[in-house]
Amino acid sequence: MKKLEVIKIGGKVIDNKEHLAAVLYAFAKIKGPKILVHGGGSKASEMEKILGLTPNMAEGRRITDAQSLEVVTMVYAGLINKNIVAGLQANGCNAIGLSGADANVICSQKRPLKLIDYGFVGDVKSVNSNFISKLAEAGLTPVFSAITHDGNGQLLNTNADTMAAEIATAMSARYEVALTLAFEKSGVLDAKGNVIEKITEAKFSQLKEEKVIIDGMIPKLSNAFDALRNGVKEVRLTSAEYLTNKKLTYTSVRL
Amino acid sequence: MKKLEVIKIGGKVIDNKEHLAAVLYAFAKIKGPKILVHGGGSKASEMEKILGLTPNMAEGRRITDAQSLEVVTMVYAGLINKNIVAGLQANGCNAIGLSGADANVICSQKRPLKLIDYGFVGDVKSVNSNFISKLAEAGLTPVFSAITHDGNGQLLNTNADTMAAEIATAMSARYEVALTLAFEKSGVLDAKGNVIEKITEAKFSQLKEEKVIIDGMIPKLSNAFDALRNGVKEVRLTSAEYLTNKKLTYTSVRL
Repeated sequence: MKKLEVIKIGGKVIDNKEHLAAVLYAFAKIKGPKILVHGGGSKASEMEKILGLTPNMAEGRRITDAQSLEVVTMVYAGLINKNIVAGLQANGCNAIGLSGADANVICSQKRPLKLIDYGFVGDVKSVNSNFISKLAEAGLTPVFSAITHDGNGQLLNTNADTMAAEIATAMSARYEVALTLAFEKSGVLDAKGNVIEKITEAKFSQLKEEKVIIDGMIPKLSNAFDALRNGVKEVRLTSAEYLTNKKLTYTSVRL
Repeated sequence: MKKLEVIKIGGKVIDNKEHLAAVLYAFAKIKGPKILVHGGGSKASEMEKILGLTPNMAEGRRITDAQSLEVVTMVYAGLINKNIVAGLQANGCNAIGLSGADANVICSQKRPLKLIDYGFVGDVKSVNSNFISKLAEAGLTPVFSAITHDGNGQLLNTNADTMAAEIATAMSARYEVALTLAFEKSGVLDAKGNVIEKITEAKFSQLKEEKVIIDGMIPKLSNAFDALRNGVKEVRLTSAEYLTNKKLTYTSVRL
């Protein structure tokens, strides 16, 4: 099976022009088929503040009302996506920016109202891996912003980690997929603050119970295990710095 | 030769949700390969005002400083493009949103500094008609925002009429192309305010001299004649209403 790298970046690396440029340079150098998924950094919250909206989070996820959806669509699918694509093109990587609506590549459904109303937030329903494969075979590198649609004209804000995991999973039927989720830390940290080299589900459960793994790390690792159970070969949790320096540490997630 | 419709919409139709929905419905119904190019409506100027920037125009074209470029990239390539794509998908049209940077499909160069410094404005240098044809052959409908790139990582704001004319021209090597430029009026108006049914270059020169054709209509018609001289079969200047009701009037531009 051919190999495919799916890499998700987000957070501070998106906000820092020089750091982002270094990451795009390194990403462009990766040989073979690859996919980039990006989050939004702090720009969406900044824009919301300027527009007089109050960024509203619940369990590490943005609550998206109609105005917030406009902001994330502008910032993620417009500003950040097109700047990343232009940056990759400048490095000789034939990137193509996509939201889930484009070519109906990722369809989602509005999250049903339970305890929390997340608003215009979509949970991934289907990934058109056939279309993504065709792009990859044509030498193109898809760059996904985490905006999807419901097929009825409604755009939906989607968690970028989840989107990366869903894409990786869908592509694992055709490729041997390695998924890298880059974030602010160098990996999953133990109680002493050191990076855990390998984490299994048993260890994950234990560290959750001990409150060593908390907050946003819980859905991130849940996404990782879901992806592994559904065919992804390896998931790495690491910093964006790792993408530019493979000597740095990371956490390898295994079943 | 196979037929291809290239349609450009812009201005008020973008701002009016119901009117835009009607246009997308009609566009989705067009049989055979088709391409949509869109401008930005008033949203970019609105956003600039909210952000404390002053929209700055010269000869009907926006002067684009670094901050304005961020705004048009957000609004055109993000908000408007993705909403149009989602709207077309809901009507069964397999749309894919593109800026010029995506798949390096439209490369431009920053307009050289002459009497007016237009800032980050790009004049189209090349259109990858091969890639656009492949999308069309795969049953996809490209939807272009008027943002291009220079190949060195710089996004550039591009006039949507010009972009539509350049795309139509490039595609005319493979298709019999009809280009429709929809705008606020029902066509080119004569001195009495009636729509001119057919306009030739001789008539254009005459009406320019008589100051009947002024301002933004001049580059629009120049674009149209350039496109016709370079292989486009027909150019229609008309209102967005014409797209939803083919009984309305339009101006046919001929060499």
